[in-house]
Amino acid sequence: METSPLTLIIFGASGDLTARKLIPSLYRMAQKNRLPADLTVVGVARSPWSHDQFRDRMAAGVREFAEPDWNPDAWRTFAPRLFYVPTDAGDPEKLAVLGRWLTQHEGTAGGRRLYYLSVSPTLYEGIITNLGTSGMAEANGGWRRLIIEKPFGRDLASARELNRVLRQHFQESQLYRIDHYLGKDTVQNILALRFANILFEPLWNRSYIDHVQITVSEAVTVLGRGSYYDRAGVLRDMFQNHLLQILALVAMEAPARYAADTLRNEKIKVLDAIPVPRFEDACQQLACGQYAGYRQEEGVSPRSRTPTCAALRLEIDNWRWRGVPFYLRSGKGLARRTSEVLVQFRCPPHLMFPLPPGKTLECNRLALCLQPDEGIHMNFQAKVPDQEGMELHATDLEFHYRDSYPDVPIPEAYERLLLDAIQGDAALFMRSDEIERAWEIMDPFLQASENPGGPEPETYVLGSEGPKNAEALLAREGRRWDTLCKH
Amino acid sequence: METSPLTLIIFGASGDLTARKLIPSLYRMAQKNRLPADLTVVGVARSPWSHDQFRDRMAAGVREFAEPDWNPDAWRTFAPRLFYVPTDAGDPEKLAVLGRWLTQHEGTAGGRRLYYLSVSPTLYEGIITNLGTSGMAEANGGWRRLIIEKPFGRDLASARELNRVLRQHFQESQLYRIDHYLGKDTVQNILALRFANILFEPLWNRSYIDHVQITVSEAVTVLGRGSYYDRAGVLRDMFQNHLLQILALVAMEAPARYAADTLRNEKIKVLDAIPVPRFEDACQQLACGQYAGYRQEEGVSPRSRTPTCAALRLEIDNWRWRGVPFYLRSGKGLARRTSEVLVQFRCPPHLMFPLPPGKTLECNRLALCLQPDEGIHMNFQAKVPDQEGMELHATDLEFHYRDSYPDVPIPEAYERLLLDAIQGDAALFMRSDEIERAWEIMDPFLQASENPGGPEPETYVLGSEGPKNAEALLAREGRRWDTLCKH
Repeated sequence: METSPLTLIIFGASGDLTARKLIPSLYRMAQKNRLPADLTVVGVARSPWSHDQFRDRMAAGVREFAEPDWNPDAWRTFAPRLFYVPTDAGDPEKLAVLGRWLTQHEGTAGGRRLYYLSVSPTLYEGIITNLGTSGMAEANGGWRRLIIEKPFGRDLASARELNRVLRQHFQESQLYRIDHYLGKDTVQNILALRFANILFEPLWNRSYIDHVQITVSEAVTVLGRGSYYDRAGVLRDMFQNHLLQILALVAMEAPARYAADTLRNEKIKVLDAIPVPRFEDACQQLACGQYAGYRQEEGVSPRSRTPTCAALRLEIDNWRWRGVPFYLRSGKGLARRTSEVLVQFRCPPHLMFPLPPGKTLECNRLALCLQPDEGIHMNFQAKVPDQEGMELHATDLEFHYRDSYPDVPIPEAYERLLLDAIQGDAALFMRSDEIERAWEIMDPFLQASENPGGPEPETYVLGSEGPKNAEALLAREGRRWDTLCKH
Repeated sequence: METSPLTLIIFGASGDLTARKLIPSLYRMAQKNRLPADLTVVGVARSPWSHDQFRDRMAAGVREFAEPDWNPDAWRTFAPRLFYVPTDAGDPEKLAVLGRWLTQHEGTAGGRRLYYLSVSPTLYEGIITNLGTSGMAEANGGWRRLIIEKPFGRDLASARELNRVLRQHFQESQLYRIDHYLGKDTVQNILALRFANILFEPLWNRSYIDHVQITVSEAVTVLGRGSYYDRAGVLRDMFQNHLLQILALVAMEAPARYAADTLRNEKIKVLDAIPVPRFEDACQQLACGQYAGYRQEEGVSPRSRTPTCAALRLEIDNWRWRGVPFYLRSGKGLARRTSEVLVQFRCPPHLMFPLPPGKTLECNRLALCLQPDEGIHMNFQAKVPDQEGMELHATDLEFHYRDSYPDVPIPEAYERLLLDAIQGDAALFMRSDEIERAWEIMDPFLQASENPGGPEPETYVLGSEGPKNAEALLAREGRRWDTLCKH
């Protein structure tokens, strides 16, 4: 069965993601000899292109978005894997055009098909239903799998409805809901750090950790995606998926083994242990910001309340974490692009060394630097050399992927995720229960940001550290946002 | 009282240590403005030098041994602090010459005196007794302190005898027994690392640590000190003092505060908890080596059994360390000069990631790099980037003093120790009980290395990793010597 033809079918092949991420990732994997030799890729969209027109457009995408890897010879070897079927997958009769093309392409033995929904979320339900009713979701000479891009719903109700539609036509085991953060090596390294070492796990709990900060900041603005973004906002765009997934990896118990369900069982336990706040509490625990000039962006309402930056506070009510706040923040138009998990440890119970008057001890912090300087910083106190007595100063133990692996650039997350889906490994994809619970947690914050009585977004200067209210969220508990990673 | 004249009197001023370490250290401290302005230094020896001849010889010493710091102007400012009194301190009548010189130098108010015994250990008792009987040990217008160089005895009996003589004429609080390793910033940083951070102490016990290795290796040979060395050997020269002091700092409980007695109380508790082996056990737990060519060195017996390299195994029988071996090794004529504490942690109780067939997990190690690359390495498992699944590889979190303090070279240990003795801080000096307990622990190993029935030294090649029997000492327990520090 694994020798039947293998086809990746990309719905939305004329879109940005296909040219920017998917085809460059497939092309690089082919260069690394990781792509199954018999894999073909079929782009599907309404634009009336030929196979060669599609290939030329994708070549332009690779040259633009994967320029260091561009190699005309490699492309000439890769391009014949690409095909294009112009049709409207949202129309049952027109989807049949694709069905016939695939049947002919695969031959009488049938084939293995990986569908990829890279279309507007408004089209998800139509295409899923059409795939189901046309029989294209049924195994025939090989499996059928479906990759679904974010956003997966826009709140709990819509996510539940989308899952309901999916379950009518697909089994959960066929579904690969993408959160591309899980495809990042540094995000996966959270698990290696915690569970392949004895050094951290004994400290990884409320006895030794004061609080945790998770920051995903972007320097870019909405960049022409104003109309989409204004309906989403940062809470839907970043928190419900990336930030909560990172939180789950940081906070979860050790699974017995690295496998899709053991891993996801542990992640959902963490999400289940986060209390869903009431509206009033969400208003208190949320800080929203909007960068100056956002309301003038194309597609954005001039009276928009949509947050482009937010910070919020969660707790995890279980034995390990009770009383340890997790502060999450993310935004666009900020001073820098960085993703970082910062674990603030408690202070030593007693300091045997005298401190100079007015000085307090900086207590240990561990930073997991997810990007762009992939690595780890552990801030600790060391003796200052060549001083009388025992003068202390905080310094870092450091690890940088680029130093340890100078010849291995951190790959694009989609490379790993596409290969995992092809190989049937769902460990780095989100299960329906995770998705729904994440929305359940976010819904009160969304309502707080959208409804009267909730916090108005505070305007912040483009390229700044973000709104002051995000600082205040921590300051009122005697804490402050911090960073150790290099930028 | 602290304004009375302050004098450092160096007995053995014509010797190697004075020109190589003591005067260069004082000169550098003067350059750093750390030396009390009124401090004068009086060299004492039998050579019939004038003040100026002594100054010229010391200038030559600074130029030779502290060349980067040589500055004629600075020396011209410093040199007038130096004086020289030619006499034989071992002769009571001739010591009176010095007494009269000091009395005249100090004037009627008397003065503070720091005596420094930098003579052959055979002269210690005579000088101590003469200082006592002549009244020069008695406070007169200022304190009297006495610094004593190593070696402090050559076994438990002789150390006890020396302490007995000292107690006849001095109080314990006047005594500063030097172990220059304690003057090293990186050795003091063991305390900062353990007790100014919360990260390490919860792991610092038998539940998480498999064993500890302490290595002090030298590339140099006996270098013309053959006659002294052949009567000492590496066990007296390095183990009884430096290695056991490092062990005590690594293993001790947290003192309530950084002070001489609280610190030394904790160190003696560790030494007290080390079982003194019987002769037969010492023979088993000791490996001795002698570098090829040692017996041809000047002053060395052609049939010498003296070890130039040794390794031994100790345990600490207390709640924290029971069952955790401490392996100590040191030697001359080895591949490199390095001092390193390596803490081997236990393995994670369970590994959730599959390992390739035949591969075992390298478990965490922490290296405290005392010299020459002063810093810390923490070896941990990280995800290998750009690989399928979760491939693990060990890599280091690193801290290097020279990166964090590029403008602060690690100072000579004697700078700190001389200043501490001047200021009356005995925290980094050894108390009589520590000295005696260390000899008590070492005596059976000395007997094993010297008596019939004990292990013969194994010859090893100059510049090699040392004798094979040192490897075997660990190998029979399934372990091996290891290093993480850069050399």
